[in-house]
Amino acid sequence: MSDSNLGKATSPAPATGKLAIFTPGLGAVATTFIAGVERVRRGLSVPIGSLSQMATIRLGKRTDGRSPLIKDFVSLAKLDDIVFGAWDPIPDNAYESAVNAGVLEKSDIEPIAEFLKGIKPMPAVFESRYVTRITRATNVKTGKNKRDLAEQIRADIRNVMQSSGATRGVMVWTGSTETFISPGPQHQTIEAFEKAMEENDDSIAPSMLYAYAAIMEGIPYCNGAPNLSADFPALLDLAIEKGVPVSGKDFKTGQTWMKTIIAPGLKARMLGLEGWYSTNILGNRDGEVLDDPASFKTKEASKLSVLHTILQPEVYPELYKDFSHVVRINYYPPRGDNKEGWDNIDIKGWLGYPMQIKINFLCRDSILAAPMVLDLALFSDFAMRAGMKGIQEWLSFYYKAPQTAPGLQPEHDLFIQQTKLKNTLRHLMGEEQITHLGLEYYQ
Amino acid sequence: MSDSNLGKATSPAPATGKLAIFTPGLGAVATTFIAGVERVRRGLSVPIGSLSQMATIRLGKRTDGRSPLIKDFVSLAKLDDIVFGAWDPIPDNAYESAVNAGVLEKSDIEPIAEFLKGIKPMPAVFESRYVTRITRATNVKTGKNKRDLAEQIRADIRNVMQSSGATRGVMVWTGSTETFISPGPQHQTIEAFEKAMEENDDSIAPSMLYAYAAIMEGIPYCNGAPNLSADFPALLDLAIEKGVPVSGKDFKTGQTWMKTIIAPGLKARMLGLEGWYSTNILGNRDGEVLDDPASFKTKEASKLSVLHTILQPEVYPELYKDFSHVVRINYYPPRGDNKEGWDNIDIKGWLGYPMQIKINFLCRDSILAAPMVLDLALFSDFAMRAGMKGIQEWLSFYYKAPQTAPGLQPEHDLFIQQTKLKNTLRHLMGEEQITHLGLEYYQ
Amino acid sequence: MSDSNLGKATSPAPATGKLAIFTPGLGAVATTFIAGVERVRRGLSVPIGSLSQMATIRLGKRTDGRSPLIKDFVSLAKLDDIVFGAWDPIPDNAYESAVNAGVLEKSDIEPIAEFLKGIKPMPAVFESRYVTRITRATNVKTGKNKRDLAEQIRADIRNVMQSSGATRGVMVWTGSTETFISPGPQHQTIEAFEKAMEENDDSIAPSMLYAYAAIMEGIPYCNGAPNLSADFPALLDLAIEKGVPVSGKDFKTGQTWMKTIIAPGLKARMLGLEGWYSTNILGNRDGEVLDDPASFKTKEASKLSVLHTILQPEVYPELYKDFSHVVRINYYPPRGDNKEGWDNIDIKGWLGYPMQIKINFLCRDSILAAPMVLDLALFSDFAMRAGMKGIQEWLSFYYKAPQTAPGLQPEHDLFIQQTKLKNTLRHLMGEEQITHLGLEYYQ
Amino acid sequence: MSDSNLGKATSPAPATGKLAIFTPGLGAVATTFIAGVERVRRGLSVPIGSLSQMATIRLGKRTDGRSPLIKDFVSLAKLDDIVFGAWDPIPDNAYESAVNAGVLEKSDIEPIAEFLKGIKPMPAVFESRYVTRITRATNVKTGKNKRDLAEQIRADIRNVMQSSGATRGVMVWTGSTETFISPGPQHQTIEAFEKAMEENDDSIAPSMLYAYAAIMEGIPYCNGAPNLSADFPALLDLAIEKGVPVSGKDFKTGQTWMKTIIAPGLKARMLGLEGWYSTNILGNRDGEVLDDPASFKTKEASKLSVLHTILQPEVYPELYKDFSHVVRINYYPPRGDNKEGWDNIDIKGWLGYPMQIKINFLCRDSILAAPMVLDLALFSDFAMRAGMKGIQEWLSFYYKAPQTAPGLQPEHDLFIQQTKLKNTLRHLMGEEQITHLGLEYYQ
Repeated sequence: MSDSNLGKATSPAPATGKLAIFTPGLGAVATTFIAGVERVRRGLSVPIGSLSQMATIRLGKRTDGRSPLIKDFVSLAKLDDIVFGAWDPIPDNAYESAVNAGVLEKSDIEPIAEFLKGIKPMPAVFESRYVTRITRATNVKTGKNKRDLAEQIRADIRNVMQSSGATRGVMVWTGSTETFISPGPQHQTIEAFEKAMEENDDSIAPSMLYAYAAIMEGIPYCNGAPNLSADFPALLDLAIEKGVPVSGKDFKTGQTWMKTIIAPGLKARMLGLEGWYSTNILGNRDGEVLDDPASFKTKEASKLSVLHTILQPEVYPELYKDFSHVVRINYYPPRGDNKEGWDNIDIKGWLGYPMQIKINFLCRDSILAAPMVLDLALFSDFAMRAGMKGIQEWLSFYYKAPQTAPGLQPEHDLFIQQTKLKNTLRHLMGEEQITHLGLEYYQ
Repeated sequence: MSDSNLGKATSPAPATGKLAIFTPGLGAVATTFIAGVERVRRGLSVPIGSLSQMATIRLGKRTDGRSPLIKDFVSLAKLDDIVFGAWDPIPDNAYESAVNAGVLEKSDIEPIAEFLKGIKPMPAVFESRYVTRITRATNVKTGKNKRDLAEQIRADIRNVMQSSGATRGVMVWTGSTETFISPGPQHQTIEAFEKAMEENDDSIAPSMLYAYAAIMEGIPYCNGAPNLSADFPALLDLAIEKGVPVSGKDFKTGQTWMKTIIAPGLKARMLGLEGWYSTNILGNRDGEVLDDPASFKTKEASKLSVLHTILQPEVYPELYKDFSHVVRINYYPPRGDNKEGWDNIDIKGWLGYPMQIKINFLCRDSILAAPMVLDLALFSDFAMRAGMKGIQEWLSFYYKAPQTAPGLQPEHDLFIQQTKLKNTLRHLMGEEQITHLGLEYYQ
Repeated sequence: MSDSNLGKATSPAPATGKLAIFTPGLGAVATTFIAGVERVRRGLSVPIGSLSQMATIRLGKRTDGRSPLIKDFVSLAKLDDIVFGAWDPIPDNAYESAVNAGVLEKSDIEPIAEFLKGIKPMPAVFESRYVTRITRATNVKTGKNKRDLAEQIRADIRNVMQSSGATRGVMVWTGSTETFISPGPQHQTIEAFEKAMEENDDSIAPSMLYAYAAIMEGIPYCNGAPNLSADFPALLDLAIEKGVPVSGKDFKTGQTWMKTIIAPGLKARMLGLEGWYSTNILGNRDGEVLDDPASFKTKEASKLSVLHTILQPEVYPELYKDFSHVVRINYYPPRGDNKEGWDNIDIKGWLGYPMQIKINFLCRDSILAAPMVLDLALFSDFAMRAGMKGIQEWLSFYYKAPQTAPGLQPEHDLFIQQTKLKNTLRHLMGEEQITHLGLEYYQ
Repeated sequence: MSDSNLGKATSPAPATGKLAIFTPGLGAVATTFIAGVERVRRGLSVPIGSLSQMATIRLGKRTDGRSPLIKDFVSLAKLDDIVFGAWDPIPDNAYESAVNAGVLEKSDIEPIAEFLKGIKPMPAVFESRYVTRITRATNVKTGKNKRDLAEQIRADIRNVMQSSGATRGVMVWTGSTETFISPGPQHQTIEAFEKAMEENDDSIAPSMLYAYAAIMEGIPYCNGAPNLSADFPALLDLAIEKGVPVSGKDFKTGQTWMKTIIAPGLKARMLGLEGWYSTNILGNRDGEVLDDPASFKTKEASKLSVLHTILQPEVYPELYKDFSHVVRINYYPPRGDNKEGWDNIDIKGWLGYPMQIKINFLCRDSILAAPMVLDLALFSDFAMRAGMKGIQEWLSFYYKAPQTAPGLQPEHDLFIQQTKLKNTLRHLMGEEQITHLGLEYYQ
């Protein structure tokens, strides 16, 4: 579409002052993120995997030679200006939690041990009915009802902002996956939602209270897990009203990330798909939880939809109708905190002849997720300053199940998501869109 | 860039009448291509892998719901209008050659046996010094010098056109890879080139004679192998002068295709690369030839450059400087006509933590290449009617080593190549470019 | 143990006259077996995978140079002397069934089509409660009770023997896996068993009737599936009484076969095991059945025990205690009649350092099982002539869950099983046992 | 063969007093071995991978329940009685060398740092013509000729024995692979050999001087590399004369070990082999050296012979004649000190139907080799006390290219090697051989 249809957003305010990044959850992902930011600030590590820190963006024609770093092109908060706030039902500080998580090596944690010990989790809103299998949940808020608990979170936010001198905030959910909840009448309007909180309605999960608190305090909310959280009309309307960006759901790491790379490649070449078999082995608490058939159902649904949306069997029935798609997750303790994915892909080419692709991926979940927390926080803060609000589809790049405007199908193709992200930045800064046409070089 | 910079090409003439597709080489790729077209024409098979036959193209906004088949959007030659012409130094007809190649199953060949037997190769220009290891080369032209041989090819072209009633032609090189030749003074101007032909200069390889003949006859030339063929100033100038599209080099199948899918995925996420080890096992004549270190050198160079161009180590030294890239090809007879690739990819994420991806690809070279022959023929014919001439960068999608304007780096990223191809079609037909911005849905 | 403890068995009678091989089940395994025997008889194929046809046996010292073919060393029935008899609830003849099974290629079946069409299944004893998911079961015996059905099978056996002129018979169960049944009081004595048959007791499954009929008719019984069949006191006592050899259970093909190769290799080197993750994808009816958690439970138990028995965690707790062993089977239609296994093995070496082995096995179940049917039939017939009776532990080599004398742990190590098999043949023929000591070459 | 042919060896003398283990080479393998022994002595680690420390041996019948640890069955030197002596051209002590090698983690080395620092290499016999690519060779002996150098080694041995109070010694070559040398007239008799040393003949490599010195001093010699070392008549005759056990060559680790597990498994089942493709990627100095075609030739020869000897194509032409066997080693720095093997095995079953096995092995060379150094030292010392001398074929289990009596083919099957090893121990201790016959349980 041409740019002329779109009024350019207001010129974004610069990122001055401190930015508070709030994480409900101070486990493997959050501590890997926090420890990493601190190591990078001290020059001990490189923020690999973060677009906001490392990627460039091409501007103008190929031959113009203009490709600044994204962080030099748009005004993002600097790492030195970041302060952290976290909640967790387990009382361990960030040092203890990082050591327990076993993601980072001792030798990477020790040099910043004092810094990490200083980050202590605020008491969390927690009920074991929403997340089973968490033991040691002793660091928990009490209140007369859920609305009161939400108000306590809001107070926590204001306290952290005030004590740290932060001028802006962002919240990124890095907690565990909650039980599946379908949106009901309680989730349709803000009035119904607030009443449900007051009545301790079961359909109001803790993550919703965090999202509500963030939006009410005027800070963007990003959801790294598949639970509803802010993905219903009441909170989305509230976000529009308060001018707050919201995005989700479920960080796109590991096998699903790989699928959104390979599937567009098959489709680009119009190669058919007979079947895609995916199995995962995990040795940590995630694996234990997802080995349970009930918990896995939720995850499975989100994982299965990816291929269908990319491949469009309704458009290409001869290529993609009725392919077999199996996804399995198995708990396998020897894998420890790492994760191993194995994919077998049966494709068909010219005249229907079969071929096979097999992929073995030895990956690390928190290592892939941590830079996403950083990017989402910085881009959401930027979006807020640029006057954007509500669902941020341009951040689909980071999510397994991107939130979109009602009626739109989410875009899962990693490369279209990337184009969308970069063209949005170009658009917000008044630069031309890149179309890769390039005929002018030959005329 | 905005469309306004570009004058739209002249409105393409419709594809009326017959199109002759000429293949120098009537081996595994060409016979798989020809047999497939015939099977599809008879409704026996589906042309999987062919964009020109199966892909759709989105026009306008997502919500417009306009996604016609490419072949309904632009005027391409119909399969029923295609006639074939081929040269080969081995005198086998297309039926005998297909059976020998062992790509297609007997049960797929037999129903069209009579048709295939009717395609007999014209005598080829052949010298064993340019392609070793071809035995049984008994179907060979003789002439007083190379220019005379080129004129004989031109006469062949005219004969086929006339006898078949074809109004347009395209030539796609599907012959073997020739010995490496560096462009010299003989390749700089058309005068020097014609003189060199007359003097039987060693630097004039057979494939150059075919390319010269095609361009002189006003038919587009596409090069599926890595040899020079039409990739030098003399023939490129001639193509511009004669108004003929040209493209190349080396069909992007198998492992390199996979690399141009995975590498953009790593880079999109700013994940670093420590090393990429690729090995291939092949059991056919290709494998035998490439097991020879000398022949492999040429192929290796082209295979190695792909990763560097996509990953840009000069822009991202912390991610991609000095990664180890090893490519090996081994002759392994049990693999027969199939091909097996094994890749081990060592990547690094947040704070430098290592992860591994391993890919095993059981593929079939001719099955992947055949639909490319069809697409290149049809798109090149379309380009000619649209008034385009010289190098067709928008067809980079099909090539391992895309020809580009001097001074431009070739684009290897499969997804950018795809965008370029589709946006070119949109542009030629006066449609808007797709940028995936989509902010209008949220305003 | 020294040979002197053992009286040598009576010198085996020679294999003169015809041998009838009876298979309850005329599906993929049985037809692949029968078609193979016929092709080998006609000189069209080689009986690869069959020890009885292809293996040699070393006799005496290495330097003696005596290594005859097993079939030249012991008197086995000749392929030309084999006749076939089969039962199946589906009325398809062997040709129709082989085509349906999709194991052998059409071009391998056609030359022997007439022969296969001549093998029509006798009506089977069948009840869907013991094997679900078999439709088209129209070729079924009726009778007043189970004992009557067993007598009908005995009559079938006698008829086949008489009409074919066979002097000896063997029965090999190649039918589907039956529902799990624990041995009860009905299985303890032959009287109780016969009474239960008369009372149509639910604990008497069809396969038991076949085993009973075989033993009563004095022909050896071999069990290729994991169901009980002949593995309980009543039938084992009967076999001793009637002088009939019996062996089982469950053909050792595919992933379990591979496990019994690799695990002894790890143990030989005293390398530890942290975990072994196995997943299987199957596209045929077996896969469909085993994708059902209930059916899988039986199979899983047998698959899991293999590693423990070989590795002896009770003897080597530091190496093998509490290793994680996960086995999964998934139904995945694109794999068709083939089978794909993927194993990930986490081992530990010197000082506990970890290493990983990953195995991908693209195999074919019926191709691996068919030569076992042949070997078991021929060796069981030989054992009968050699005066052996009851459980044949020396045939453990062929089984996933070998039957052994009460109180003995089954031997799963493929290499010990092989030694046992060959040393038994040597013993029966009065040759020395091989111990691989060989010190005499150095003294 | 029956035991009666063999006089039992003299009853072995008990292992009293200290045992000095000498290693020419103090690099990755030797330091991993030494550090491991010390950690085990202190109770910090378990000697996984060592038969002498961890394996049991079954005695008598299965039902006897006699399975003592090997070290309780035969009198082996205790770990506490071991002292170390090493030579290396690089002057680093065992601590520095272990840290450089990068095999063991810092946290495993530090607790025994002082102990390792105390092990300083004696000056080595070294000439860069025999091992290229070693730089920093500053710790080198000088002498008037090679015989003089050998005498210096003998003096070193005596010094270490005396100063440590050791009563017995063993030498295990853990140095680099030397240039290929064919045995010549200089290697036929001890006189010719000693003369050649005096004349500084080029065909006398340093490892031969070590072997000569060891044998002259009456201590067993084991060769962990593929170079000749002690594998020629002069030194073998000397070993017989001096009553010294000798064994070699080339530790069987990694891919070759795996081959000697899988190949016997295929052969046991009479499955055919179409081809075996093996590739290795290594990132350490070994990889760098073997990436050189000349060095690789030697290694390749030894690696290729394994399959032929196990599979016996001359006996089984229909199964194993002309299979394709490709072995490649590639230098790939990201793999560091680890090693990755990838095997593709094309097998054929019943009627010739093809199947594929693919194995990916992420292993660690020094971790696999270190326990072999220990076992070879302890078993060789035991053999000496048991009166055995010359080639020890029963230790083939540890070697890629086992030394055997002239005219005997080496046995490569890991499981036969294991039987040979254990039956030799049983024989030396007067126990019955195990044949796995076991018919007595059924009679």
